[in-house]
Amino acid sequence: MSLARTGVVDMVFRLRFGAKASVGEVHGAIVGAGGEVVAMETRFVDGDEVIRDVRVSVEQEEGVPILQDAIRQIPGVTLVETFDRVFVAHMGGKIATHLKVPVVDRADLSVVYTPGVARVCEAIRDRPDRAFEFTIRKNTVAVVSDGSAVLGLGNIGPEAALPVMEGKAMLFKRLADVDAFPICLATQDVDEIVETVVRLAPSFGGINLEDISSPRCFEIEERLRQRLSIPVFHDDQHGTAVVMMAGLLNALKIVGKRMEDLSVVVAGVGAAGVACTKMLLAAGVRHIVGLDRTGILERGRAYDNPVKRWYAENTNLENRKGTIDDAIRGADVFIGVSGPGLLTPHHLKQMARDPIVFAMANPIPEILPEVAHGHVRVMATGRSDYPNQINNVLCFPGLFRGALDVRARTITEEMKMAAAEAIAACVPESQLSEAYIIPSPFDPNVVPAVSAAVQRAALRAGVASLHANVPIDDEPVYTEL
Amino acid sequence: MSLARTGVVDMVFRLRFGAKASVGEVHGAIVGAGGEVVAMETRFVDGDEVIRDVRVSVEQEEGVPILQDAIRQIPGVTLVETFDRVFVAHMGGKIATHLKVPVVDRADLSVVYTPGVARVCEAIRDRPDRAFEFTIRKNTVAVVSDGSAVLGLGNIGPEAALPVMEGKAMLFKRLADVDAFPICLATQDVDEIVETVVRLAPSFGGINLEDISSPRCFEIEERLRQRLSIPVFHDDQHGTAVVMMAGLLNALKIVGKRMEDLSVVVAGVGAAGVACTKMLLAAGVRHIVGLDRTGILERGRAYDNPVKRWYAENTNLENRKGTIDDAIRGADVFIGVSGPGLLTPHHLKQMARDPIVFAMANPIPEILPEVAHGHVRVMATGRSDYPNQINNVLCFPGLFRGALDVRARTITEEMKMAAAEAIAACVPESQLSEAYIIPSPFDPNVVPAVSAAVQRAALRAGVASLHANVPIDDEPVYTEL
Repeated sequence: MSLARTGVVDMVFRLRFGAKASVGEVHGAIVGAGGEVVAMETRFVDGDEVIRDVRVSVEQEEGVPILQDAIRQIPGVTLVETFDRVFVAHMGGKIATHLKVPVVDRADLSVVYTPGVARVCEAIRDRPDRAFEFTIRKNTVAVVSDGSAVLGLGNIGPEAALPVMEGKAMLFKRLADVDAFPICLATQDVDEIVETVVRLAPSFGGINLEDISSPRCFEIEERLRQRLSIPVFHDDQHGTAVVMMAGLLNALKIVGKRMEDLSVVVAGVGAAGVACTKMLLAAGVRHIVGLDRTGILERGRAYDNPVKRWYAENTNLENRKGTIDDAIRGADVFIGVSGPGLLTPHHLKQMARDPIVFAMANPIPEILPEVAHGHVRVMATGRSDYPNQINNVLCFPGLFRGALDVRARTITEEMKMAAAEAIAACVPESQLSEAYIIPSPFDPNVVPAVSAAVQRAALRAGVASLHANVPIDDEPVYTEL
Repeated sequence: MSLARTGVVDMVFRLRFGAKASVGEVHGAIVGAGGEVVAMETRFVDGDEVIRDVRVSVEQEEGVPILQDAIRQIPGVTLVETFDRVFVAHMGGKIATHLKVPVVDRADLSVVYTPGVARVCEAIRDRPDRAFEFTIRKNTVAVVSDGSAVLGLGNIGPEAALPVMEGKAMLFKRLADVDAFPICLATQDVDEIVETVVRLAPSFGGINLEDISSPRCFEIEERLRQRLSIPVFHDDQHGTAVVMMAGLLNALKIVGKRMEDLSVVVAGVGAAGVACTKMLLAAGVRHIVGLDRTGILERGRAYDNPVKRWYAENTNLENRKGTIDDAIRGADVFIGVSGPGLLTPHHLKQMARDPIVFAMANPIPEILPEVAHGHVRVMATGRSDYPNQINNVLCFPGLFRGALDVRARTITEEMKMAAAEAIAACVPESQLSEAYIIPSPFDPNVVPAVSAAVQRAALRAGVASLHANVPIDDEPVYTEL
């Protein structure tokens, strides 16, 4: 059953019971105020006082302050904290470990631990790649963050980033059966992050970088890709780019345009914007104009940030100057990874025929679909409450599933493009429409399709190493059965 | 059911089937040679060839070469590899992750991931200790090794150490419901190990150091204890010392001697030997003589290793010199963490009345129980096939369970001694005997007893921080309910 049972709110009230306080009175007060006591758990006995967590169901959110008031009336009882459904779901963390083989008796111990394990250790010592068959490396990805750019919250540090990385690990497991483990680092120094990830890599089959601020994220990823022979993937960059590309592939079918003819505006040249731009270039798009807070990125201006320097030199063929007003004229596609309200209907009217607008700023897009309505042909956002959600979760589970299954040494451009094409193909041509260019993150076809496409691309690119044992003569055909 | 079904051997034969090879022929050959085909899994389809893992049960170990010969006779089939039960149990790793809360639909996503998770992040950003309530930090321990001193195998590196660390993580989960995750480090530099563990600590509630060679292990542990405010515990040192102490406490009841009157010989002054010595000193033992490969550690000799210098200055009150022959005269207790065959019956005859011998060298003790028989009163080893196994697994699960449950900031001497006393007390006085001074690692009383004792000791020592929310006036009494 879903966590979110409609119309019912689960709460935990943490109460301190004084020496003379009555549990029965608390129970009665909660029921009297419209709550249902689901459980009462003693956390501490502290001399005469007791701290208890009281879990309560209430029909409506509005019932919560009524319950709080009722509790505060009870003599000898103090309301220490109130936790709602979101906090209740996070108590004790959201992932755990479990044993894949039973340990019932000493004979089992002698298989999975000493002395039996020593033979497996020796086999790996003699050939370290065997770790990918006989240890968690086969199926385990580190979700690594330094907490420097978490959601829309900014630089909140490693401890506060951990719930997001746990959530990411849940999605890896739930959608693609990848065992992911969150690693939140107590450093924001580029060199230290690189060295740390290199040192802990022997436990993992892949590295998913997450919520690391731009432009540090580019250097960290690039250096790790050079140092490690397992996949390294900064999801904020490439996950967004892959799903954007999937949506764009389908949008172009609707409007009947080709990549090489497009004029594209990219608003926001942080991690996601730069990755989207590189993927558009790789797909054959020639006319791209990028915008940051200071306006159009153009040759002839001095940029401290080397990524912006690269951007100005490799886009904007006409070397346009100015603001969004200047960039948007005649554009076929707008890709927004910037902030709320950048676009107006006036801008949309100046685009080429059949405008495609991906307004992906979160939580508030560059233009709301209801505002854009009538002025765009195909519209997508980052939000789940509108059609066409550009959601990274369509990419990373299947991409890593495929990379792990062929033991890819890296993630290539071809693998990302294969993932985008596979996501796009999950919307059948017969169902394709302006309001359905992107499948649902819970569409069960997505992960298998992305995984298979990524595996084929890795084999073709020569970065798959699974058949270390199995010399293959011709171009291989891999079939997962 | 136990992995080790008596008399049945599970094997995997990895076979390459050529274009004309017949699956039916393989099946028939295996059955004909006395095996039972349990499963046949296709791993690759590679042009005309197919690689399959054939899982086979065979009644006796001796049947395996017969099966191999039969397979090799089949035209067009190549036996690529043969894996026995131990390797089969390790395939794909021994631990995995799972979700503690369901993710069924987008509404669930909005609780465990964006946008709901942002509120939990903000709550932790405002008070980082909340991570111990709302993330995996509450229940998660890193099992950290550099692969420099793994089992009896020596310096085999991080990849080859991983199966041992996974096994350790299994024991944490199986015995104490602690979520442990193996981190094998691609460095053996002391500074780098310290910095790396400090940086990854925000994801964890405790650090279990494992199989790091001496004397580096002492400095690494000490520096991490100073840098981190979560428990850091080098199991090879303290786990061994705690369980040794538990056994000694019970042995002393049998022979009727007191700690302060003992004369103890410690053979081997690596990680375990030094920790045993420190714990003996803490327990009030005054007369300790240590031995390394060069003989008795004595004042007046120059030691490069600072730990040996400490040892020589803080033991050996009479400043004895020489070898085991000189050390053993009049000793009440022998603690061996050295190598096979150090002790002879001749040595035992020179000990004081009722000799206590803990010959813990693995896999072959300093003296075998059948050789010592008749010359010792109480004997223990590190082996599961003799009585009185000094096994670390009696300590670390319950110790970390207790430390996590009161959110201890460190592991104190008092907590270790409390663990030793709790382990000792798991053998009821009425059942105590020369052949039963140590409980079984699967005795279900051990973890709860150790955990409760450790919690009380942590609270008394003032290193428990669970009641950050809960000011406590007097000496607190913690009750886990």
